[in-house]
Amino acid sequence: MSRNVDLIVKGGPVLTFDENDALYINGLVAVDKGDIVYVGEEMDLTEEFVAEDTVDVEGDLIMPGLINGHTHAAMSVMRGYADDLPLDRWLEDYIFPAEGMLMSDDMVYWGSLLSAAEMIRSGITTVADGYLFEASAVRAFRRAGMRAVCAQGIMEFPTPQWDDTERMFEVAREFIKTHVEKGASDLIVPALFVHSPYICTPDTYRRAKELAEKYDVRLFTHLAETEDEVRQVKERYDTSPVRLLEKEGVLSDRLSAVHAVWVDPEEIEILSEYGTAVIHCPGSNAKLASGTAPIVAYLEAGVPVGLGTDGPASNNRQDLFYEMDLCAKEQKQARKDPGVMKAKTVLAMALFLGAEALGLEERIGSLEAGKAADIIVMDLSRPHCSPLFNYPSHLVYTARGFDVKTSIIGGRVVYHWGRFYTFDESEVITKVFEIAGRLG
Amino acid sequence: MSRNVDLIVKGGPVLTFDENDALYINGLVAVDKGDIVYVGEEMDLTEEFVAEDTVDVEGDLIMPGLINGHTHAAMSVMRGYADDLPLDRWLEDYIFPAEGMLMSDDMVYWGSLLSAAEMIRSGITTVADGYLFEASAVRAFRRAGMRAVCAQGIMEFPTPQWDDTERMFEVAREFIKTHVEKGASDLIVPALFVHSPYICTPDTYRRAKELAEKYDVRLFTHLAETEDEVRQVKERYDTSPVRLLEKEGVLSDRLSAVHAVWVDPEEIEILSEYGTAVIHCPGSNAKLASGTAPIVAYLEAGVPVGLGTDGPASNNRQDLFYEMDLCAKEQKQARKDPGVMKAKTVLAMALFLGAEALGLEERIGSLEAGKAADIIVMDLSRPHCSPLFNYPSHLVYTARGFDVKTSIIGGRVVYHWGRFYTFDESEVITKVFEIAGRLG
Repeated sequence: MSRNVDLIVKGGPVLTFDENDALYINGLVAVDKGDIVYVGEEMDLTEEFVAEDTVDVEGDLIMPGLINGHTHAAMSVMRGYADDLPLDRWLEDYIFPAEGMLMSDDMVYWGSLLSAAEMIRSGITTVADGYLFEASAVRAFRRAGMRAVCAQGIMEFPTPQWDDTERMFEVAREFIKTHVEKGASDLIVPALFVHSPYICTPDTYRRAKELAEKYDVRLFTHLAETEDEVRQVKERYDTSPVRLLEKEGVLSDRLSAVHAVWVDPEEIEILSEYGTAVIHCPGSNAKLASGTAPIVAYLEAGVPVGLGTDGPASNNRQDLFYEMDLCAKEQKQARKDPGVMKAKTVLAMALFLGAEALGLEERIGSLEAGKAADIIVMDLSRPHCSPLFNYPSHLVYTARGFDVKTSIIGGRVVYHWGRFYTFDESEVITKVFEIAGRLG
Repeated sequence: MSRNVDLIVKGGPVLTFDENDALYINGLVAVDKGDIVYVGEEMDLTEEFVAEDTVDVEGDLIMPGLINGHTHAAMSVMRGYADDLPLDRWLEDYIFPAEGMLMSDDMVYWGSLLSAAEMIRSGITTVADGYLFEASAVRAFRRAGMRAVCAQGIMEFPTPQWDDTERMFEVAREFIKTHVEKGASDLIVPALFVHSPYICTPDTYRRAKELAEKYDVRLFTHLAETEDEVRQVKERYDTSPVRLLEKEGVLSDRLSAVHAVWVDPEEIEILSEYGTAVIHCPGSNAKLASGTAPIVAYLEAGVPVGLGTDGPASNNRQDLFYEMDLCAKEQKQARKDPGVMKAKTVLAMALFLGAEALGLEERIGSLEAGKAADIIVMDLSRPHCSPLFNYPSHLVYTARGFDVKTSIIGGRVVYHWGRFYTFDESEVITKVFEIAGRLG
């Protein structure tokens, strides 16, 4: 018996990250219509697959693509424009004025496409993005062939995209309506992003939440990022950021709280009870000296935690291999225990736990029949990855984004050995230099 | 007028890291007999150089090679063998037994050569190594064409290299005598490495210090790495590690103290007064949860601080781009101030300050006439490094070892675009897999 499929990936070990943590030594993944239809040992096949295309990985490691739980991809045009500053000065003196000068559909399109190149190159196959002009980010991720949760940003002051709050909600509603119609199998998943409790009012949070519920989309927000935010919220509302959102009815399993650094043990329990997810951005938090989020405690409390790079202007990388390593090391230091945040735990955050933190656990995060064919191939044969005792250790503490040889998203090979198949990287770089040049 | 030289590197900006922090936009470096004879704008040349070889960098960045102030290169054969464990269990249950099984001239040669490949590939042109069978590490670094401070290890218990303390000092004396004769222009600089105050006695420290003084070589030691070490030293000697070495007359400007995490403000002053250098290994300290060294305070006190990767079994990388970023981020977090440990400061530690911490400030750490021609070329044109506002930011927060295009050591091109010119990397990997395979 034989079965026609679109793609077969084989010729090396397959690390599935499924429930049984299965490793197939001479593995094979069969893909049809963007989804995985078989994962297992090649020799265990009971039906023959006849594939349109075959990727032979020549002994390299086949694994699920990584999930970047938070970025503002378009901000790549400001990468390295301002560093070594506190969050408030960085935002108010540099980033907001620069955005005022640059932000447009054009900037968001080319900046997001540049970030897509960086991310795909380093094994990220799904990104959760949040910015203004998000429809242009959608165009960029579609062109790149990248899976993306695209969250239209909401911040209630005049921006290059709107003059007042009413127009802002119109833009957001229009955005969601357009993209939600494409359905669950589409690479693009629309969502909403409310900036933060220090910039947005409780009323805005409530309205955004209602909009998210109406269209059944995910809601994101920056939350409890800095001590200063906690102080400001306390002054204005006489409560903490987490408790403010609880009081306003915004906490739910629809919400992904980004950062969530400054919380007390009771607030960790509150987030857990509501099923609210946390996205941890260790690189950005460290570069801005925002503090170390209590990730070990979140995981102990059963909070789904994903890993994010944050925007490339505050990190300045969008490489989850780098974030995984930093996450492990920071948590070990914070808990004074090298035994916490083991390599496998961090990988979970970049894979299936990260999927859960975006509400996408049915679609991505592991290699299993029925899930999307988001697959990367890792070349672990070079000097810096030799010898090889165990995969999780190498993936977290040794490998880098540059060890990714092939990226496959929704069954489509989008990158292989230095070459992007979906766009011309030099055109993107030229455009971004043009846009960034306006900052002079 | 024209002058014959061995090598010219030109065709791009030259970031010198000299006293004036000079940047030459269309720069040129001329090299003769391993040393730099000219650095400046190509158009400012008053004599014509006729070069045997020319490297045209085609717009890429020319800068000094990075200095890895501390590793145990041969431990690459145990990379990823044991992770996520405290220092004492990691050493006693895994690393020491594994070393007992594997350690030999052969293991040190191939392990060090593998590490040389990793380091050269990521822009490290000088390494300070400390291990047993160090004469074999010397052979490896010579073959790789890498500049290396090679410190024979001293730890007073029987090892595969000796049975008793007397034999240990004979081995060390022989090692230094052999290599010190080659003189200051040689790529290999001999030195001594006393393991630590928790493993070695005050008597051994004194004897090692006398030996180092007799031959005028540098002395290294692990010092105040963990809280547990401080406790043990306190119990045995009723004082702290730093004060113990002061009392025994071991502190001097000949000493490089590796780690130096657990010190009080007075001890920082003591180290500063003696001119003792510190080598900071942020990746290793974080992975073992040893704590965050007070680097900002060391620098304020005028202590020369270099950056080290530590051995590849406890990091598990030997890539200073990675360490620079982590150093900046950890110090910002520890001081709750994103303004400390700016990109330029971290670069200094990986370059001229790091040279000073090894007593090599006259030879390396910046591109200046009279210094050794240790030069790297950085390709900052790829998506993850675009756009480009300023070099220090990109070098610390954005670039990675894989952005190194060319490595030149002592005027010799040892690596260019994926190819090692001094050895066959696949032979090295094969040998290391054979050796590591004995661990089963």
